[in-house]
Amino acid sequence: MCGVFALSQANEAAKLTFLGLFALQHRGQESAGITVVNPNGQLVTHKGVGLVSDVFNPEKLEKLGGTASVGHVRYSTAGGGADANIQPLTARIAKEPVAIVHNGNIVNSHELREELEDSGSILQGTADTEIMLHLMARCRNTSFTNRFAEAAALVEGALTSVLLTQHEMLGYVDPLGYRPLVIGKLGEGWVLSSESCGLDLVGASFERDVRPGELVRIDLKTQELHSSFPGEARAKEKQTPSQSRRARCVFEHIYFGRPDSFLWGQSSTVKRTELGAALAQKAPVEADLVMAIPDSGVPIAMGYASESGIPYRVGLIRNHYVGRTFIEPAQNVRNFRVRLKLNPVKEVVRGKRVVVVDDSIVRGTTSRHIIELLREVGATEVHVRIGSPRVSFPCYYGIDTPKRRELLAQSFDTEAMREFLGADTLAFLDEERLTEVMNQGLEGANQQEQNWCTACFSGTYQDRFAQRASQTDGPGGSESKRGEEHGRN
Amino acid sequence: MCGVFALSQANEAAKLTFLGLFALQHRGQESAGITVVNPNGQLVTHKGVGLVSDVFNPEKLEKLGGTASVGHVRYSTAGGGADANIQPLTARIAKEPVAIVHNGNIVNSHELREELEDSGSILQGTADTEIMLHLMARCRNTSFTNRFAEAAALVEGALTSVLLTQHEMLGYVDPLGYRPLVIGKLGEGWVLSSESCGLDLVGASFERDVRPGELVRIDLKTQELHSSFPGEARAKEKQTPSQSRRARCVFEHIYFGRPDSFLWGQSSTVKRTELGAALAQKAPVEADLVMAIPDSGVPIAMGYASESGIPYRVGLIRNHYVGRTFIEPAQNVRNFRVRLKLNPVKEVVRGKRVVVVDDSIVRGTTSRHIIELLREVGATEVHVRIGSPRVSFPCYYGIDTPKRRELLAQSFDTEAMREFLGADTLAFLDEERLTEVMNQGLEGANQQEQNWCTACFSGTYQDRFAQRASQTDGPGGSESKRGEEHGRN
Amino acid sequence: MCGVFALSQANEAAKLTFLGLFALQHRGQESAGITVVNPNGQLVTHKGVGLVSDVFNPEKLEKLGGTASVGHVRYSTAGGGADANIQPLTARIAKEPVAIVHNGNIVNSHELREELEDSGSILQGTADTEIMLHLMARCRNTSFTNRFAEAAALVEGALTSVLLTQHEMLGYVDPLGYRPLVIGKLGEGWVLSSESCGLDLVGASFERDVRPGELVRIDLKTQELHSSFPGEARAKEKQTPSQSRRARCVFEHIYFGRPDSFLWGQSSTVKRTELGAALAQKAPVEADLVMAIPDSGVPIAMGYASESGIPYRVGLIRNHYVGRTFIEPAQNVRNFRVRLKLNPVKEVVRGKRVVVVDDSIVRGTTSRHIIELLREVGATEVHVRIGSPRVSFPCYYGIDTPKRRELLAQSFDTEAMREFLGADTLAFLDEERLTEVMNQGLEGANQQEQNWCTACFSGTYQDRFAQRASQTDGPGGSESKRGEEHGRN
Amino acid sequence: MCGVFALSQANEAAKLTFLGLFALQHRGQESAGITVVNPNGQLVTHKGVGLVSDVFNPEKLEKLGGTASVGHVRYSTAGGGADANIQPLTARIAKEPVAIVHNGNIVNSHELREELEDSGSILQGTADTEIMLHLMARCRNTSFTNRFAEAAALVEGALTSVLLTQHEMLGYVDPLGYRPLVIGKLGEGWVLSSESCGLDLVGASFERDVRPGELVRIDLKTQELHSSFPGEARAKEKQTPSQSRRARCVFEHIYFGRPDSFLWGQSSTVKRTELGAALAQKAPVEADLVMAIPDSGVPIAMGYASESGIPYRVGLIRNHYVGRTFIEPAQNVRNFRVRLKLNPVKEVVRGKRVVVVDDSIVRGTTSRHIIELLREVGATEVHVRIGSPRVSFPCYYGIDTPKRRELLAQSFDTEAMREFLGADTLAFLDEERLTEVMNQGLEGANQQEQNWCTACFSGTYQDRFAQRASQTDGPGGSESKRGEEHGRN
Repeated sequence: MCGVFALSQANEAAKLTFLGLFALQHRGQESAGITVVNPNGQLVTHKGVGLVSDVFNPEKLEKLGGTASVGHVRYSTAGGGADANIQPLTARIAKEPVAIVHNGNIVNSHELREELEDSGSILQGTADTEIMLHLMARCRNTSFTNRFAEAAALVEGALTSVLLTQHEMLGYVDPLGYRPLVIGKLGEGWVLSSESCGLDLVGASFERDVRPGELVRIDLKTQELHSSFPGEARAKEKQTPSQSRRARCVFEHIYFGRPDSFLWGQSSTVKRTELGAALAQKAPVEADLVMAIPDSGVPIAMGYASESGIPYRVGLIRNHYVGRTFIEPAQNVRNFRVRLKLNPVKEVVRGKRVVVVDDSIVRGTTSRHIIELLREVGATEVHVRIGSPRVSFPCYYGIDTPKRRELLAQSFDTEAMREFLGADTLAFLDEERLTEVMNQGLEGANQQEQNWCTACFSGTYQDRFAQRASQTDGPGGSESKRGEEHGRN
Repeated sequence: MCGVFALSQANEAAKLTFLGLFALQHRGQESAGITVVNPNGQLVTHKGVGLVSDVFNPEKLEKLGGTASVGHVRYSTAGGGADANIQPLTARIAKEPVAIVHNGNIVNSHELREELEDSGSILQGTADTEIMLHLMARCRNTSFTNRFAEAAALVEGALTSVLLTQHEMLGYVDPLGYRPLVIGKLGEGWVLSSESCGLDLVGASFERDVRPGELVRIDLKTQELHSSFPGEARAKEKQTPSQSRRARCVFEHIYFGRPDSFLWGQSSTVKRTELGAALAQKAPVEADLVMAIPDSGVPIAMGYASESGIPYRVGLIRNHYVGRTFIEPAQNVRNFRVRLKLNPVKEVVRGKRVVVVDDSIVRGTTSRHIIELLREVGATEVHVRIGSPRVSFPCYYGIDTPKRRELLAQSFDTEAMREFLGADTLAFLDEERLTEVMNQGLEGANQQEQNWCTACFSGTYQDRFAQRASQTDGPGGSESKRGEEHGRN
Repeated sequence: MCGVFALSQANEAAKLTFLGLFALQHRGQESAGITVVNPNGQLVTHKGVGLVSDVFNPEKLEKLGGTASVGHVRYSTAGGGADANIQPLTARIAKEPVAIVHNGNIVNSHELREELEDSGSILQGTADTEIMLHLMARCRNTSFTNRFAEAAALVEGALTSVLLTQHEMLGYVDPLGYRPLVIGKLGEGWVLSSESCGLDLVGASFERDVRPGELVRIDLKTQELHSSFPGEARAKEKQTPSQSRRARCVFEHIYFGRPDSFLWGQSSTVKRTELGAALAQKAPVEADLVMAIPDSGVPIAMGYASESGIPYRVGLIRNHYVGRTFIEPAQNVRNFRVRLKLNPVKEVVRGKRVVVVDDSIVRGTTSRHIIELLREVGATEVHVRIGSPRVSFPCYYGIDTPKRRELLAQSFDTEAMREFLGADTLAFLDEERLTEVMNQGLEGANQQEQNWCTACFSGTYQDRFAQRASQTDGPGGSESKRGEEHGRN
Repeated sequence: MCGVFALSQANEAAKLTFLGLFALQHRGQESAGITVVNPNGQLVTHKGVGLVSDVFNPEKLEKLGGTASVGHVRYSTAGGGADANIQPLTARIAKEPVAIVHNGNIVNSHELREELEDSGSILQGTADTEIMLHLMARCRNTSFTNRFAEAAALVEGALTSVLLTQHEMLGYVDPLGYRPLVIGKLGEGWVLSSESCGLDLVGASFERDVRPGELVRIDLKTQELHSSFPGEARAKEKQTPSQSRRARCVFEHIYFGRPDSFLWGQSSTVKRTELGAALAQKAPVEADLVMAIPDSGVPIAMGYASESGIPYRVGLIRNHYVGRTFIEPAQNVRNFRVRLKLNPVKEVVRGKRVVVVDDSIVRGTTSRHIIELLREVGATEVHVRIGSPRVSFPCYYGIDTPKRRELLAQSFDTEAMREFLGADTLAFLDEERLTEVMNQGLEGANQQEQNWCTACFSGTYQDRFAQRASQTDGPGGSESKRGEEHGRN
């Protein structure tokens, strides 16, 4: 997970990009960086480890200035948090300085890296993004549009990327469209942002999404935006059928995206609320109150409450000051790690039958501790309702899921999960209902084709992992297609 | 506003105090500090500017260690944020090292400071707490209990304080009981904390509040807790009537306290919900949804929604990464400062008649921008409902309210406020209903007497300010007793 | 050892004081600080741990500005390097802010501290300087001149101090005159500096020394300098004889002072050269070259070479980058600690009979390693000549000498020292010749009376230590009066 | 100018390399770095901006550990001080991690860089060293010895370099031998160091110099050292005559090297003293004392004094605390910048005819201020004597000389220089005498051929610059061959 923000024309590009990244901070807290084109046409970069507001201060932003810019916040890395991996990455290609940012995961990076090194390229870090730079440097093409398209064609996986040179800005989303990228307008210039909330803060208007497979080129001088679909062009040339299947990441709406974001033509808050309502229809229960695990569970819980008629209550308070430093006392404090972030409101929960709603279960350990905590302060029944199907398979497209064997749903069927969690009942939303809800109002979608990547639920990957998944796909895999609700009896 | 946390016996006092302060971080973000008694009987202090997690790291806590401790988080200062004011303050008194922390505001500090300096004392900072140290140093009494009591008798205003020496810990709340201090039990030792949420995180059990006028002394060797009421003893001696009137700060429940805290025998979340319900009864309105200004307005809004039957929705998303650095673009972004913290969910608000609920209105500027923002994204009507009366008078007891003339309610009647805010209707909860709700279940309260400080609503101060307030008390003062609701038409 | 610098009028007092302290850096590297009077008449202080150039940067100096100022560099502390001890110390006395700096050591500080604390004063640190502040705060006198004089009268030992208020600057040297303080003129204003090299860098002209027992008061408005001798005035009043004996520290010229400084009417370089010549007369030897232990031994060695006719050579190279961090390899490197600072020039020393000249021998360990090193690279004979007598007694007046038992001369006679050092011959300058050289041209000196403190050689202290020294004065003491040269055979 | 230090086997390679770099700190103060091979065979690097002791601390060195290592201190850069240029540079070549350091300057770096970029290489920084990495990466050879030799063959200019892999260490000096590299022995392992003073501090014994054109390979497992001369081998193969001309930098002895270093079979202190003596013979003068401009002028001045019989005196005191921060007062202090570093001893200079000796004159501004300062404090005559010829041409081989037009000798003949400096007389050592002195005892030198690079004096470069120099070679060039002494009258 990463966040990308870019501006093609502004008086104070660095400052506005700072704000855009600030609005996208939830997409990555490990490092942040901005490259600007300054009035002399030079590319200047400042980046570092930490939150956007750790890495930048008013003086640095003032000094960066800039008339166009590209910025990035980064979550975590395959390959570790080395400085060489902090984006934007910069290089000189065809005698021109360029800067690139990227959200997603290149699944054939290992092979590409080997090939590059064998022919004498020296890569500095372990970031996928660097591979794009070297592929572009190797191209014989003269225009950056062509270099980018040629390099992108060699890459498999999730590639949402923005490239900045002194003269142009390129924005690209891979043909399956795993990760979002929206286009906004600010004055004469254009904004590219991972989510629409980035546009809101700088006062830009939302225009549209960059479409799967689309490469937009913005001329920094004229501010003309030109769109092309290099993959489709190639397909046409080779007379192979063009791709219409998509693999938008469903978790962008359910978990990652800010609830106020508007992605692929839809509001995340509205989608989550609808999922909650669908969940209430699918898995009703008799209870005194509905509560959420903050923050991502909140709209789902409210949808559940609305639909079921059970009142919604705030039963867990989140500590807003949770930071990086984790200090655990030597002496045992029950459910300490959960308490650090969440504290139950005893007077709300005590003596009540509660429905606890969350967006998903990955490892299940936090949920288990929360349930324990709720029982400790007097909840008489705890019914867990999850707004998405069982996550049984790892993500290879940019989300830092744990290893397969750490996924609770890999080894446990739903009844075993319920027992592990200590819940009275446990229910998930099924994939069919999920897809149905998600398809409603999806921008640019072909309702006949597959629109969403649901590999983490089904193990049905779009590429090389398809096979890999099925090979190791034991009981966990098939399990995930079975029924999802089990009551204590 | 400050937070106080202390432990009389623990294996790793510094670490647990860190956690206690971490849970109290909402009470003060300017500085943090901890003093421990180490195994050699020495008092060792570490303190600094910033959040608890900025000031401390695992190495520092490990090094501090400690068997008993006292810690503090500080909000802001009369007298500025100078280093000399960061608590705990330490000194040698009667050849013994002591450390002291304090929450509240001494209203006769100026006179006391003058007297001390005239007789040759050198004060380092501008903190009220330092005055207590010097008053104690000047006493001829031998025991710290007596020195503290004697010094406290000279002090007017809000004084919730904890003193730590090598041998004992003293905890005190002034006779009017402005600020809370709870007692917890952890193993053999005792915990003193501004709020109960501090107890929860370290796994301590809640015992009771320190009562108004009570001085508790804990012997660090035997862990015996001894309670005395020096003011009452003095009154008895002098045969003057003992004080039964109290002045607990009503905003501790409405705004400052964490919603999961349990103060003076009551849950803040429950109280806020009840206030919301009372507000719905007092000031109903026809609307499509109820929404809160996060976070303090949330339980009040949910109480309003429940009582009124209008659905509660999340219409504003709070950015959790808002930090210290404030960077404003040169170019004008409408309602920028509000957007930095809050972004509306357009799809929830658009085309709706919304009730916006908040805990209080002080300056009114933020509320005004929020209302503007809601109209911008399509709210058709905006009805503002406030869970407390009009704040027309400054606080002299430890809360950093703006100067009188910056209080919106000082110069504007409710209709003028409505117009300023741009709301369709505006209503406040009245003082009578507020007091009624707050008195229910109040620990150790005499229901016949006054229990709460409502000076900021009424201008009726308990002390020297009584006069001062009335002198300058123009229309604003009387205004605040008038009716509080005005419709647009 | 500390350095003091103050300016009574300047456009950019902070910056000039920074430069003055920079020139005095050799007098103290532990901490640095500056207090200025700013144009609003406020006293503003910045101070911290480290070198002057670590603590200050151009921005901080710019911000401090100032029209008058006082600064300090600090060497080491009785009482540790706690922040509370970093000078200037500041306080409010008689409703006026003051700042004070100090060079020297108060020998009755323990008693004074006890008295102050017993009567209710709270001292923050362990610095002697703080005692002066509290004594002044306790005075009933109204003028700062009188307060300072009254406080100074209570103090025994070495007290060279500068006090700054909004309206005046006071400079003082104790009646025995242990530590230097020079007066310079810069434009309309005055400069006070521990050494004349501080004047040179800011372009101030040297005026004269502050005399023993003199208190100078500079009015910041009129720049009038008024001189008084409060001790003599008191003596006159009481009809006791005034003090004419002095105790100027001989090591100020021999070791501490910068070689380019001009103190008490004399040049340190010239004095050191003269001491070297006297040493050559007293303790000649046949050799091929004279070399110094850098840097303090250099002029002494050159005086020795000149007088003896033996050529002076550079046989040891000093590493200029030796810093704070001391990193010793686990594996044994012979004479590592000496090599870190000094490396012999093999080609100069090999096959030669060398005279090695230093200013003094304290512990003797470094000298021993240097001699070993010189023999290692091929010196055939090593003759050690020391430009001062044997240091057999500790200093109580501001120099951080080791404990008595660590002084090599305490337990070893000269022959035993020679053997310990591994020298072929060893000779010291005797006290009589030393005094003779030092008295020549001494400013304001009475040649009939004692002018110099030679307590570290003779054990003859001027005060309370007189007795203490003689009591514990075993063979070491008498030893020190015996002959000082011993040949190997 | 840079310093290089490497160890092929040690228990605590990082710590020893730290010490080696510490001894070489005078060769570069801008940045420092160390790469170690750790026990798992990984290469780990730590580097940063500042002095060795700023960049490293005991914890970091402990953590680095290492069994073999390579380190670097860096002076300044063509291409600026960007982080990407801090050495060691690291890369993966042929699937193996490597680290490289370099002292010198590649004169065809621009062409090589262009070629590399044209064929798709991405260079991160502007350092010459990076070019070596890319050239090696492009080689088809399998051994690193061959890759290095092949890359070195493409490079022109000064290339003294050490390469470290998991298995081997390579040390190389270019065929003209511009920069020194010495070989030492420490236990079973080998040490490579820019100067012998690096060996001394870690207790290594001096073995020999790496010879011009020599490539030494040390096997990290067996510690076998293998020597080859790839250039000569190539010449033999091609039947072209092998190179015997050398271009050792004469300034390594005169200015850069530490006076205790032993380079090319000679002691720098001895060489400098001999130059001083030759200077006294060539340009005698009647005067009262000889003094040096510290520190590099000291041995030259002592040689001059010895030969001339005029006494040597210390007339300027150097401030040892001069750091990075440069703070200049707004008000004018005469000769401020010189005074910051050097202060005259008035009592030594006053009324005297002084001979001021320095190693060279580049811009001449500092010398001019020093002479002014000496006259100010009373010198009656100032005779300047320089231990090397006039520096009229820039250096392209690793020394950061100013641009040609800033070289005083470019535009001024000696008489004009004398006038500019304000000296009574000015004399330089001539190139012939210089070469004569330098050739005595030169290791591995062919006394018939040219041994030294004297391009900065004569403009006679060894390569592509030969032409460039002559083209622009106006009066300055021929001037430099004329007589060098001019008296005032």
